[in-house]
Amino acid sequence: MARHLYELCGADPDRVFSPFCWRSRMALAHKGLDFESIPWRFTETDRLAFAQHAKVPVLVDGDRTVADSWTIARYLDEAYPDRPSLLHGRPEPYRFVAAWNDAVLQPGIARLIVSDIPPLLREAERSYFVASREKRFGMTLDQVTADREQKLPAFRATLQPLRLALAHGPFLGGDAPDYADYIVFGSFMWARSTSPLSLLEEGDVVLVWRERLLDLHGGMARRSPCFGA
Amino acid sequence: MARHLYELCGADPDRVFSPFCWRSRMALAHKGLDFESIPWRFTETDRLAFAQHAKVPVLVDGDRTVADSWTIARYLDEAYPDRPSLLHGRPEPYRFVAAWNDAVLQPGIARLIVSDIPPLLREAERSYFVASREKRFGMTLDQVTADREQKLPAFRATLQPLRLALAHGPFLGGDAPDYADYIVFGSFMWARSTSPLSLLEEGDVVLVWRERLLDLHGGMARRSPCFGA
Repeated sequence: MARHLYELCGADPDRVFSPFCWRSRMALAHKGLDFESIPWRFTETDRLAFAQHAKVPVLVDGDRTVADSWTIARYLDEAYPDRPSLLHGRPEPYRFVAAWNDAVLQPGIARLIVSDIPPLLREAERSYFVASREKRFGMTLDQVTADREQKLPAFRATLQPLRLALAHGPFLGGDAPDYADYIVFGSFMWARSTSPLSLLEEGDVVLVWRERLLDLHGGMARRSPCFGA
Repeated sequence: MARHLYELCGADPDRVFSPFCWRSRMALAHKGLDFESIPWRFTETDRLAFAQHAKVPVLVDGDRTVADSWTIARYLDEAYPDRPSLLHGRPEPYRFVAAWNDAVLQPGIARLIVSDIPPLLREAERSYFVASREKRFGMTLDQVTADREQKLPAFRATLQPLRLALAHGPFLGGDAPDYADYIVFGSFMWARSTSPLSLLEEGDVVLVWRERLLDLHGGMARRSPCFGA
């Protein structure tokens, strides 16, 4: 049965960098499900019309089409109940992890790396990306990330909830990873795929945890195109 | 069967204000379990020697003694599996809610209200409290909370993860409250029990949620001694 994941990529089709697509990519690997990645780029909304959705990720699993990373995670647990669980039958507490990620971590990373993304895009997508993000931030992208080395300590301070949670086990999911890990890891993969900036310091348990995630599922994430470490 | 919850209180034994005790108090109410509150004050460590623990909450449930709010929540789910669940058989994702609460929300509230607490304590506890907190903050408690009205917007901005999570249902637990709600609510009850400062603005979904929690379990939290609204 054919299984396709439509994922956001840059000019290089192997450089998949959307944090939401990384959630779904890791979720599929967690379930042990093979899939073919279908490169998709900003502005190609027509190509997703079949899914009645304007954004990736979109999963086509045989005759089922599922859009949106959250819906994909729930679908995978329902369709493959005998495989390792992502949400353990109760998505509610994972909503808070996603809320923290979307309200704090992802915007925090964006302010450090957003200017690194345009050079990775084709011309058509670059124009769209720069215009939409400049509008969102109210300044040029270089202005957003100016003096970013000086902003790193404040960014790292916002990761304290991760450190406290990881004091109880190697993964946010406890002894084994679950969807909480993939939500947060998706944001770090977004940064790793697009920017040379080292977000995390040596000795930080969040870095140790990220390395652990990079090694999961045969090192799938570690092999993905990135900059530096 | 006698059930006793040792709880931190001020000079007024009815003014229970520890955020961790409030977690256990709400957890017991969630389970529909009656209990007698045993007032306990800072420095009365001898009175907890039987529990081999130096802090409250401590629950004595018949012949079982359970210390620490997290352990109490797990114990209640195990001992009363037929009552409404707190952690739904999987504590791990609730660890992150607690981590965010302990790293962000509780310190944020402390910086706004800590100077309101000493007048509520007896002389013996007041000396201990002021000395230990001044040492922690490296300044007087009045200095910690100086200009607090001006600090409120920044504090309220840190609540954004709660707002995103509450977009999906009336409680962090979804359609019904669970331990995620009680973890966060405990911090708000700490503030409500000790300070006249209004942490939340009209129109904030976090305020609407807090009102919902105040009404739960027959309005137990709403009836507790507080200042203003």
